[in-house]
Amino acid sequence: MKILITSGGTTEKIDSVRGITNHSTGHLGKKIAELFLAKGHQVTLVTTKAAVKPEPKENLKITEITNVESLLETMEPLVKEHDVLIHSMAVSDYTPVYMTSFNELENSEDFTEFLNKSNSESKISSASDYQVLFLKKTPKIISLIKQWNPNILLVGFKLLVNVSKEELFEVARTSLKRNQADLIVANDLSDISANQHIAYLVDEQSQEKVSTKSEIAQALFERICHD
Amino acid sequence: MKILITSGGTTEKIDSVRGITNHSTGHLGKKIAELFLAKGHQVTLVTTKAAVKPEPKENLKITEITNVESLLETMEPLVKEHDVLIHSMAVSDYTPVYMTSFNELENSEDFTEFLNKSNSESKISSASDYQVLFLKKTPKIISLIKQWNPNILLVGFKLLVNVSKEELFEVARTSLKRNQADLIVANDLSDISANQHIAYLVDEQSQEKVSTKSEIAQALFERICHD
Repeated sequence: MKILITSGGTTEKIDSVRGITNHSTGHLGKKIAELFLAKGHQVTLVTTKAAVKPEPKENLKITEITNVESLLETMEPLVKEHDVLIHSMAVSDYTPVYMTSFNELENSEDFTEFLNKSNSESKISSASDYQVLFLKKTPKIISLIKQWNPNILLVGFKLLVNVSKEELFEVARTSLKRNQADLIVANDLSDISANQHIAYLVDEQSQEKVSTKSEIAQALFERICHD
Repeated sequence: MKILITSGGTTEKIDSVRGITNHSTGHLGKKIAELFLAKGHQVTLVTTKAAVKPEPKENLKITEITNVESLLETMEPLVKEHDVLIHSMAVSDYTPVYMTSFNELENSEDFTEFLNKSNSESKISSASDYQVLFLKKTPKIISLIKQWNPNILLVGFKLLVNVSKEELFEVARTSLKRNQADLIVANDLSDISANQHIAYLVDEQSQEKVSTKSEIAQALFERICHD
């Protein structure tokens, strides 16, 4: 099968020297890729410069992206030619629009003006004591996958922080329905450490608990290749 | 001599999954460290996890920091026990205070309230179309160096983007005076590429032009060890 995997975290530029990054090392995506590669599948890994990556292999293609815009452009053709997407990348929810001083905010009569502005400076000045950064929502790539390819098997990821299991499952099932995903890997940052990565493979009826990155990879392989 | 070098870029957390990063690979700091190590000096490198680093050596100590707060804590004792500081790290100018929806901003009667708020959520919700992030200035570490150790030789760095040489030199000399620095390495992002790194070693009277990272390291070594 042709497996498309995303890993790492996107960075949205504030200016030419600063950006907002979603932290993700890429270790989980690497583990998943390595398992499918070892089983003889063709893997395309869409990842970032900073993320860890598998060793080069004949059946592995790696493509690097930076921000949501470049991810979107890269994904559309790839989604159309793969059988499975395992979308473990941490994608930025918001991207910077305009950064200004607190004074400019106080002197404004209509803040919506800031949503249509953009910074002309290459490096935003650091003169004022406080600054205000306006951000807008990025396109939700996961919601476009089944439009691009209704036959692809879609595995999404949901990372929350310090929530109850009930809330985690509920949010995962909302994402499952909204994005027509086949499976959501739901996890809580507080359950992830060097040697542990508790996660739940959530579908409409069930939630399967696994406890390490290797177990997540193994469980995904079994669901995808043996179901 | 005991040489303290900083490299890489700091990251200021927005929440537990997102942060604002000053991009810096650490290549220049690595080059400078390697030259001083090769000449038999004792080097302490304060850097970040993501930055490239020299190979381990007997006369090299490496300390990793994350944000401006941890840099500040780490630097004070180190500055007191070194002869030279080469401060090439890209340090965040601002750190997040509070992130909220555009609606909350529109409904506010006094925006200064946002400067005293903080997010209670571990991961800020991504429900609204626009968000607003309030940031405050970080302490300027370079301005504290000579207070901590009046005898240290201080080399600062100034990176601007797309400015004239006159502006670059003026900003460098302002930093020289304000921070009681002995030398400022002034450079423009538009003059930096894979094989080129144009920079000017600026003091009160002169500006010495160099064109690569190796030349920057060599010129710094000559100024520091032969003057």
